Amino acid sequence: MPEMMRAIRKLQAGPGAELCTVPVPEIGPRDVLVKVKATSVCGTDYHIYSWDPWSQNRVKPPLTVGHEVAGEVVAIGRDVTATKVGDAVSAETHIICNNCPRCHVGEYHLCERTRILGVDVDGCFAEYVAVPEQNIWINDKDIPWAIQSIQEPLGNAMHTAMEGDLTAQTVMITGCGPIGIMAVPIAKTAGAELVVAMDVNEYRLDMAKRLGADILINPMKEDPIEVVRSHTRGYGVDVVLEMSGNPTAIRQSLKSARNGARVSLLGLPSKPMELDLGADVVMRGLVLKGITGRKMWKTWYQVRSMLRAGLAERLKPLITHELPLEGVHEAMELMGAGKCGKVVLNPEMAAK
Amino acid sequence: MPEMMRAIRKLQAGPGAELCTVPVPEIGPRDVLVKVKATSVCGTDYHIYSWDPWSQNRVKPPLTVGHEVAGEVVAIGRDVTATKVGDAVSAETHIICNNCPRCHVGEYHLCERTRILGVDVDGCFAEYVAVPEQNIWINDKDIPWAIQSIQEPLGNAMHTAMEGDLTAQTVMITGCGPIGIMAVPIAKTAGAELVVAMDVNEYRLDMAKRLGADILINPMKEDPIEVVRSHTRGYGVDVVLEMSGNPTAIRQSLKSARNGARVSLLGLPSKPMELDLGADVVMRGLVLKGITGRKMWKTWYQVRSMLRAGLAERLKPLITHELPLEGVHEAMELMGAGKCGKVVLNPEMAAK
Amino acid sequence: MPEMMRAIRKLQAGPGAELCTVPVPEIGPRDVLVKVKATSVCGTDYHIYSWDPWSQNRVKPPLTVGHEVAGEVVAIGRDVTATKVGDAVSAETHIICNNCPRCHVGEYHLCERTRILGVDVDGCFAEYVAVPEQNIWINDKDIPWAIQSIQEPLGNAMHTAMEGDLTAQTVMITGCGPIGIMAVPIAKTAGAELVVAMDVNEYRLDMAKRLGADILINPMKEDPIEVVRSHTRGYGVDVVLEMSGNPTAIRQSLKSARNGARVSLLGLPSKPMELDLGADVVMRGLVLKGITGRKMWKTWYQVRSMLRAGLAERLKPLITHELPLEGVHEAMELMGAGKCGKVVLNPEMAAK
Amino acid sequence: MPEMMRAIRKLQAGPGAELCTVPVPEIGPRDVLVKVKATSVCGTDYHIYSWDPWSQNRVKPPLTVGHEVAGEVVAIGRDVTATKVGDAVSAETHIICNNCPRCHVGEYHLCERTRILGVDVDGCFAEYVAVPEQNIWINDKDIPWAIQSIQEPLGNAMHTAMEGDLTAQTVMITGCGPIGIMAVPIAKTAGAELVVAMDVNEYRLDMAKRLGADILINPMKEDPIEVVRSHTRGYGVDVVLEMSGNPTAIRQSLKSARNGARVSLLGLPSKPMELDLGADVVMRGLVLKGITGRKMWKTWYQVRSMLRAGLAERLKPLITHELPLEGVHEAMELMGAGKCGKVVLNPEMAAK
Repeated sequence: MPEMMRAIRKLQAGPGAELCTVPVPEIGPRDVLVKVKATSVCGTDYHIYSWDPWSQNRVKPPLTVGHEVAGEVVAIGRDVTATKVGDAVSAETHIICNNCPRCHVGEYHLCERTRILGVDVDGCFAEYVAVPEQNIWINDKDIPWAIQSIQEPLGNAMHTAMEGDLTAQTVMITGCGPIGIMAVPIAKTAGAELVVAMDVNEYRLDMAKRLGADILINPMKEDPIEVVRSHTRGYGVDVVLEMSGNPTAIRQSLKSARNGARVSLLGLPSKPMELDLGADVVMRGLVLKGITGRKMWKTWYQVRSMLRAGLAERLKPLITHELPLEGVHEAMELMGAGKCGKVVLNPEMAAK
Repeated sequence: MPEMMRAIRKLQAGPGAELCTVPVPEIGPRDVLVKVKATSVCGTDYHIYSWDPWSQNRVKPPLTVGHEVAGEVVAIGRDVTATKVGDAVSAETHIICNNCPRCHVGEYHLCERTRILGVDVDGCFAEYVAVPEQNIWINDKDIPWAIQSIQEPLGNAMHTAMEGDLTAQTVMITGCGPIGIMAVPIAKTAGAELVVAMDVNEYRLDMAKRLGADILINPMKEDPIEVVRSHTRGYGVDVVLEMSGNPTAIRQSLKSARNGARVSLLGLPSKPMELDLGADVVMRGLVLKGITGRKMWKTWYQVRSMLRAGLAERLKPLITHELPLEGVHEAMELMGAGKCGKVVLNPEMAAK
Repeated sequence: MPEMMRAIRKLQAGPGAELCTVPVPEIGPRDVLVKVKATSVCGTDYHIYSWDPWSQNRVKPPLTVGHEVAGEVVAIGRDVTATKVGDAVSAETHIICNNCPRCHVGEYHLCERTRILGVDVDGCFAEYVAVPEQNIWINDKDIPWAIQSIQEPLGNAMHTAMEGDLTAQTVMITGCGPIGIMAVPIAKTAGAELVVAMDVNEYRLDMAKRLGADILINPMKEDPIEVVRSHTRGYGVDVVLEMSGNPTAIRQSLKSARNGARVSLLGLPSKPMELDLGADVVMRGLVLKGITGRKMWKTWYQVRSMLRAGLAERLKPLITHELPLEGVHEAMELMGAGKCGKVVLNPEMAAK
Repeated sequence: MPEMMRAIRKLQAGPGAELCTVPVPEIGPRDVLVKVKATSVCGTDYHIYSWDPWSQNRVKPPLTVGHEVAGEVVAIGRDVTATKVGDAVSAETHIICNNCPRCHVGEYHLCERTRILGVDVDGCFAEYVAVPEQNIWINDKDIPWAIQSIQEPLGNAMHTAMEGDLTAQTVMITGCGPIGIMAVPIAKTAGAELVVAMDVNEYRLDMAKRLGADILINPMKEDPIEVVRSHTRGYGVDVVLEMSGNPTAIRQSLKSARNGARVSLLGLPSKPMELDLGADVVMRGLVLKGITGRKMWKTWYQVRSMLRAGLAERLKPLITHELPLEGVHEAMELMGAGKCGKVVLNPEMAAK
C-alpha cells in the first residue's frame, strides 16, 4: 500500500478544485479501504466545483470531493464482518446516524442526521477512499467498473421511479440531466406504456430519445400540457418523475398529470416557489412524494435486478466520457454546458 | 305528495339567500325523491351565501343551496333497483360522469367531470330533494337524523384521516372548522398516540379539547413547530391532517412533520402560495396527498363502522345548533363568527 | 339483422356440444348486441365440453357456451349511454350484483353474487351475443380481433401477476396452460429480473421459452426447488404466480419462494389439499393471494397499456389456431392434449 | 457484580427444568448485561418445559430458558454505542444474521438465519441475561417492569393485527391463548367496528370479554361461521387474526371471512393440514399472511405508541400472576391448564 495518493480537493471557499497529493486515508475498525477504479461525476460535484449558494452553506474546505464510486477493497478494519479484501464494491453515500426513529424502523434514507460522502466527509475523486462497511455494496465481478460506479445516481432515479407503479403507466420525466435521463430506460424496462421526456436542452432530449423516450418535449418550443394531453386521450399522465427542480417545470408537470396521479419529486428548487396547491394538488387528488437518497438496500437490489432485466443494455449510450483524474476540469465544463451523459473519472488512466 | 315546498334559494348573484316556495322537484327514471329530515350547514354553503370569489365563478343562480342531507325516501324512479320508499337515506354529493378512466377504475371521487349537489344542481336546504339513486346511501334506522346528515362532511374528514395509518401515530390537525374538528375524534377512535389540534379560534380549540384533542395550539400565541417537537421527542408528527387551507398553517405543518411523514391536504388555499418544496418536502421525504370528496363507497362504510366503534359517542358535543329552515340567516352568522360546531336545519321544525 | 344464428350449445348434461341454429338473442334496455368476430377457447370451456365434476354441479343445459369474445356492436338497448353501434368491443365476463359491499366499494371482482357469461347465462361461441353494457370494454379499432378476444384471459394473467411488484423481481410461474403461459411475457414486459416457467408438458414449456421464459423446469425431470434456488443465490424467488391448481406444484412453489415472498394463486385445486401451513407459510412470512376474475376496469386498462408497452409483440407466438365455429371439436381435442396456445373461433370463417 | 446467579435451566432432553446456580453471563464487545426485573412466560417456554416434538428437534440442553424480559442495564461491551448502564430495557428475541437479503432490505423479522433467545442461546429466566445491543429496546422508565417484559409477545399480537387495516373493520380472533388474547384490546384500541373472539376454553373467553371482545364464540357449543355471519350482515368479517394453529379453527376462520378478507396467520399448526384452497382462498380472493416475530423496530414503536393510546389501561386484567423464579413449576401448570393470562417471574421476589 502506498502512503500517498492523488486526490481532487476543494482547498478553499470559492470556485474550482485542485489535483493534490495527500496521504492515503486511514481506516477505523468498521471501515474498508477502496482502491478507486471508476468515480463518476454528479451534478452535486459540479455545484461544489462552481461554488453555488448551496455549497457555500454546506461544504467546509479542505475536502476531497466526489461520491459516486466503484473499486476494489484493499484493506478492512478489525470489526469488518462481511466485506473481504478483493471484493468489487460500490458505496452508498449517505452515512446515517443509526439512532433516530427512521433508522430504527429501517427507513435509513430518511435518517434525521445524515452525512454525505464527498460533501461532509472526504470523498472518492482520488486513488483511494475510506468507507464505513455499513455503506459498502458488494458487486458481481462481471459488471464493468463504470456501471458499478453509476449505480449510486441510478439508485436515485430508481428510487424516484419505483416509489409507485410504473408498469402499464404513462410517465412524464421533467428534467433530463444526469439523473433524470436514467429514469427513461428505467421506465421503459419496467413496461411503462408511454415515456415523455422534457428538457430545454436539445442535447439532452436527443439522449433521452436514444435511451428510449417515446415523446420529447422542449417547453421553450411547445406547450407541455397540450402535448401530454394529446398523447393521453386528454387526461394527462399517470406518473410524473420530477428531476429538474425548476419551478416552471414543476408547475407544468402538475397540470400535465391526470387526477390522482403520482408525482415523485427528486429535483431541488433552489428557493421557495409558488404553487397552486388548491387547484393543482388538493382538488385533483394528486400525491406528491419527496424523494431523497436510495432505500438501503432495497433500491440497490432493484438496480442490480434491473441491470439484468435489460437495463444494462439500454443504458449503454449513457456513459459518454471517461477521463483521468486530471480531466476533472474538462468534466466540469461538460457538466456546465449540459453536453454529456455520465462522465467517469478513472484514477488508473494516464493523463493525456 | 304536495306540489309545492319551501326551499332556501340563491336567487341572484350577490350575498344572501331567500326562503321561497317552489315546486317539489320532479325525478327522472334513475332518481329518488327524499323528504328532508335534517340538512346540515357546510363551509361551502357559507361561501355561497356570502358570495365569495369562488362562488362568483362557480355558482349560477337561481339555485336551491345545501348538500348535507338525511331524509326519508318518498318516491322512486322507474329504473331504481335497490332503494325503496320508506328508506332512511343520506346522499353522496358528488355526481359523477361514470365515463372517465377514474370512474372506470372505481376512483369515483377523482372523476374528471364531477358536479356537486347544491353547487351545480339544486340542493337540499328544502323540504324535498331529488337525488340520483347512484348517490343514495341507505342508513340503519336507529341513527339520529342529524348524525345521518353530517356523514357527508364526516366522510371528508374520514377520507383525509384514513388515507394512511392513524393507529399508533402522532397526528397534527391544522384547522378546526366544521370538518377539521371531526378529524379529532376520528384520530382518537383509531388509536392515534397523540392528537394535536391547531386553530387561531379559541372557541374551536375548546371544542377540539372536548372532542378529545391531547394538545391544543393557538399559533398566534405560541410557535407550533416548537410545541409539536416538544411532544414528539424532537422529531415532529407522523401525520398531518391539513384542514385550514391557510398558507402559514400549511408551511408550519410541513415543518412540524417528521421526515417521511404523511401530509393529507383537504383545506383549499384560495390562491397560489409559496412553499419551500426543496427543503420541506423533497429533502425530508414527505408525502403530500390531495384529498377531495369521499371514496364511493369505501369512506361511507368507514363512517358507518367507526360510528359503531365509538365515534358516535365521541361526536356528541359536535352538533351545537338545530334550527328550522327560517334559521338559515342565523346559521350563516354563526358560521361566519366560528361560534358553532355543526348547525343542522330541520325543515319539519316550526319557525320560532 | 337476421333472426337466426349459429351457436355452439350444450344441449344436455354429458360430454360434448352441438352447433345449432337458434334465434339471435334479444337485448334488454341496458344491453348491447355484439356480432362476434373472434371468440377464444378457455380451459373452462373445455371443462364444460368434457363435463367434468365442476361443470356437472354448476352448468344447467341448454346453454350457449363460450365467454372470451370480441366483436362489433350492432344494436343497443334504450338505456345504453356510452356504447355505440359500430364500436369494436370485448366483454368482461363476470356479471356482478352491484349491490353487495364488495360492489359498493369498487371491488367488483370480489362480488358475492357473480354470474358468468357462457357458464350461468348464454355465451359467445355464436354469431351474436347479448352483453350488459356494464360489461362492455370498448377497444381501439387497430387491435386485431383475436387479440381483442384474448384480453379476458390475458386479464386473468395480468391480475395474478400485477397483484404486487413484478419489476426487478425473480418470478416463478407454475403451470403454463392457456392463462399461465401469458404470465411469461407479462413478467418480461414488466422488467422481471428472472422468469422461471414450470410445467410437465414439453409443448407448453417450449412455448414458454418462445414467449420469453429465462428458465424452464419440468418437475418430472428435475427438482424445481433446487433449480430455483440455484438461480436465486440460494434464497428462492420473490414472486410465485401459481396457475396450475396442482397440489404438488403448489407445495413445491411455496418451498421455492424466499422468506416473505408473494404467492398469487389463480389455479384451482379440484378438491381440498394438504399444506404445511406452519413451516411453509407462517414461519417464512409468505403472503398468499387468492385471485379471481379481473379488476373492473383497472385490469383492462393494464392490459391495454401493456399491449402498447411491447406485450402485443411478445404475445405473437401465442395464438396457434384459428378455426370456424365448426372447428369446436378440433379445438377441444387440442385443449385436451395441451397441444396449442390460444385457439380462436371465428364465426365468419367458412367451415373447411 | 456477583459472579454467580440463579437461573432456570433445561439440563437434559425430557420434560421439566431446574433452578440452578450458574455464573453470571460474560458479554462480548457489542453486548449488554441486563439485571432481570421481570420475565414473562410464553407458550414456547411451556413447550420446551413439557418437551414437545418441536422442542425435541430444536432445543439442545443444557440451556437457560425464557425470552420475554425487562430489566436494568448493569454492564456494556466495548463497542456498545447507544445503550447506557442504568437504562430500563426489553429485548427483541430474534437474533438475526445481518447478511441475508431480508436483513439487507430491513425486513429483519424475515431473516433467513434467525436464532432465538432462550431457544437457541441462553435466555432470561435468570437474574442476569446477556443480550446483543442490536436486540435492545430502551424503555421509558415510567412503564411497570411487567408491562415492559410482555412487550415481546404483545409485539407478536401487534404485528399480526397491524399487518393490514384494523380501524373500522370487523375482526375475528381465533385462539385466545397468551398472544391471541392481546389482539383483543389491540383491535379495540385501533377502532375496530366489531371484535369476535373464539376459543374452546371458557376461562380464556371470559378474559377476552374483560379485555373488550364484543362477541364470544365457543366452537364446541355453536357454529362459528353462522355466528360471525349473523353479526356481519351475512358477509363475514373483514379481518381474521389466526392465533390458534388449530386446523379446524383455521378452516372455520376462512369460511367466516368475507370475500377479499385479510387473514393474518400467527398460530402454528403442528403438522401439514388439509385446506380447501380453491373454494376458500382462490375463488374468494382471500389474502393469507404468514406472520413471524416482530418488525424491527416498527412493531416496537407501535407497541409503545398504543400503550399510550389507551392499550396500557385496557391490558390491566391480562397479567394474572407474578411469581418468584421458584414459581416456574406453578407457572407451567397454569399454562398447561389454560388458567392464566400472562404469568410473570420476578427474580427479585422472595420464594414463598
